Amino acid sequence: MVQIPKPAAPPPSVPRSVPTSADVARLAGVSRATVSYVLNNTRAVRISEPTRRRVQEAAEELGYVPHAAARSLRAGHSRTVLIPAPSVPAGALYGRFLDELQGALGRLDYTVVQHGTAGPHGDEAARVWAELRPVAVLVPGSGLGPRGVAVLKRSGARAVVTLGPEAVEGAHGLLMDHESVGHRAGAHLYDRGRRRIGVVVPEESGLEVFSRPRLAGVRRALDGTDAGVTELPLGYDEDCAARLAARWRDLGLDAVFAYNDEYAMLLMRALQDVDVRIPEETAVIGADDLMLGRLLRPRLSTVHIDLPSGRDLAELVDRAVRNPGAPPERHPVLGARVVHRESS
Amino acid sequence: MVQIPKPAAPPPSVPRSVPTSADVARLAGVSRATVSYVLNNTRAVRISEPTRRRVQEAAEELGYVPHAAARSLRAGHSRTVLIPAPSVPAGALYGRFLDELQGALGRLDYTVVQHGTAGPHGDEAARVWAELRPVAVLVPGSGLGPRGVAVLKRSGARAVVTLGPEAVEGAHGLLMDHESVGHRAGAHLYDRGRRRIGVVVPEESGLEVFSRPRLAGVRRALDGTDAGVTELPLGYDEDCAARLAARWRDLGLDAVFAYNDEYAMLLMRALQDVDVRIPEETAVIGADDLMLGRLLRPRLSTVHIDLPSGRDLAELVDRAVRNPGAPPERHPVLGARVVHRESS
Repeated sequence: MVQIPKPAAPPPSVPRSVPTSADVARLAGVSRATVSYVLNNTRAVRISEPTRRRVQEAAEELGYVPHAAARSLRAGHSRTVLIPAPSVPAGALYGRFLDELQGALGRLDYTVVQHGTAGPHGDEAARVWAELRPVAVLVPGSGLGPRGVAVLKRSGARAVVTLGPEAVEGAHGLLMDHESVGHRAGAHLYDRGRRRIGVVVPEESGLEVFSRPRLAGVRRALDGTDAGVTELPLGYDEDCAARLAARWRDLGLDAVFAYNDEYAMLLMRALQDVDVRIPEETAVIGADDLMLGRLLRPRLSTVHIDLPSGRDLAELVDRAVRNPGAPPERHPVLGARVVHRESS
Repeated sequence: MVQIPKPAAPPPSVPRSVPTSADVARLAGVSRATVSYVLNNTRAVRISEPTRRRVQEAAEELGYVPHAAARSLRAGHSRTVLIPAPSVPAGALYGRFLDELQGALGRLDYTVVQHGTAGPHGDEAARVWAELRPVAVLVPGSGLGPRGVAVLKRSGARAVVTLGPEAVEGAHGLLMDHESVGHRAGAHLYDRGRRRIGVVVPEESGLEVFSRPRLAGVRRALDGTDAGVTELPLGYDEDCAARLAARWRDLGLDAVFAYNDEYAMLLMRALQDVDVRIPEETAVIGADDLMLGRLLRPRLSTVHIDLPSGRDLAELVDRAVRNPGAPPERHPVLGARVVHRESS
C-alpha cells in the first residue's frame, strides 16, 4: 500500500464568498428573475438576445453556477435520479448497462447521482438516500423493503424502481430472473447426455442472491428426469479449486455448471491440472459470456445474459416520475441463452 | 436486448405533500429549532431526554427525513464529496479502492456522491458538478484543467483533488505514475536477456492516458542499452490478436510488454495458436496482477500495481476541507513491482 504523508497543518484560512444570482443580476443590471430565466433556459418567458448575452457574460465573469439544491427547493422537487451502488462487486456487463442508462437519463434532463455502498443497508439506507430528495431512485440488487419504499415516497421520490430477483411492494420492479440462467445451463447439459451434474455455489458472501436462483433453475430443468444435482461450494482462489479437483473422481460427476465464467475458468484449470479431460470426462459451462472464456482451450461454453436497454429503463423512470400515482409496473428483464463452444 | 413494454398512460395523479420539520415541531409541541437540534444531533445544545424522544417519535410517525440540500443551504456548505466516474472502464482494482475510500469518507461524516460520465467533459463538466455544491471533488483520470478547478472553488468547493498522471494548477494532486509500470516491465525483460522488445498499445480510445506513459517507461528503461522497442497497436479482440500473431516471426521480437494482463492473455493465446513458444521464443509480461493470469499455462508474469489506501486519501480530503487556503499537496501514489512467473 502506498502511504500519503501528512504535512504540518497550515493556519486556518478565511473562506471566500460564493457568487450568487443576485451578484449576477447586479452586474448585468437586470432582475434576479431575469437571471433565473436566462440561466435555467426557461422558454416560457421571452428575453431579448442582448439581455440574454449580458446575463451570460456576467455569470461567466463572476464564475456563477446555479445551485441545484436551491433550484429544487424552489421547484419542490429535483431532477436527481439516485442509483445506489450494487452491494456486490459488479462486472463489466453491469458497468456498460449503467453507462448507457446514465446517458439516456441525461438526455431526458435528469441528473444521475450514484450513492456508495458504505454505511447502512436495506430500509435504513433509504433514509440516507431520502435526505438527498431524489425525484426517482433505482435500486439494484435486493435489500430494500416496503418500509424503505414508503420513506422514499414520503420524502418526495415520485418513483422507486427495483432491479432484482423479486418485486417490492409499492415499487416498480424490473425482475431479474437468475433462475432462467441456471435452467438454460441445466437443460443444455442434459441435452448433451450428461446425468450427474455439479453446480458451483460461490462461498463469497453477497452472491447468494444470484447463486441460489441459478441452482434452483438447474434443479427445475432436471426435475422428473433421471439426472441428479450435486451442490459444490467453491471459494474463488486456486487452493479451493485444487482441493475440489483432487476429489473430483470420487464425486462421480460428468458435468458442471460453474456459476459464472470466472469460476468456470478457475475450476476448469484445476481439473485440467489433475488430468480430467474436458469435455470427455466432465462437461463445463459458465455464464456471462466473457471474452476471456473464448481464449481457453477447450473454448468455454457459457450462458449469455442480456440486460434491459438503458433507454427503455430511462423511459420507464420518466413515465413513473410523470405519473407517480400509476400502479407499479413489473417487467421481466433478463434474457438468457446458451453459447455452446467446446467445453460441453 | 430485452424490451420493456410501455403501458397505456394512466391519468395524472395529485402529488402528496412532503412532511417538513415544521410538521414535526407541531406534532411534538416544540420549536423548529429544537427539531433541528435533535435530528442533526447537535451537541452544543442540551435537550432533555423526553423532549428528544418526543421529536424522534414525531419524525418517525410522519416519515420525516431531513433535507440535505436545505441543511447545506443553511450551513453555507455541504458535506458532499463528489466523485465523477472515471471516463474509461475501471477494473476490479479501482472498484475495491473506491469502496474503501467511500467507507473511510463515510466514517468522517461525508456523503459520497458519484457522478456519471454522460454529458459534458473536462472543464465544462466542472460546471455541472458545481451545481451540486460539493464541499470537495475527487477527479479520477485526466481532463479537468485549471479553469474547471476555479469554477468548482468559486462555487464553494473547499478542496479539489485530482487522481491522474499530472498535477493540475490549484488542485491537490495524487500522481499516478504509469511510466514506472512500463519501466519495471522493460527493466525485467532486459534483465531476462531480451533485446528486441515489443510494447502493446491498445487501439481502444481513452486508454492513451495509461498506455503512453507505460510505453515511455519501457523506452526509458532501455535508453542507452543495446535493446530496441517496437510499438504494437492492438485492438481487444481475437481477430486483431490473430493478425498480429500471424506476422510475429517477421517482427523478430523476443519479448513483449502487453499493456495489461487482459491484452497479455489475448496475445499469448494468439501466439500459442501459431506455435510461438512462450517464454522460449517470446517472453510475455502483463500488468495488474489479475488472478486469471495465474490460471494460464505458462503462468503469466505481471506488474503488480498498488493504489493508495482509501483511508489516507479520505484524510487528505478532510485536511483540505478544513484548510482550503493551504497550498496544494502533491503525492506520488502508485506502487509498481514485477511478479515474475513462467511467461517471461
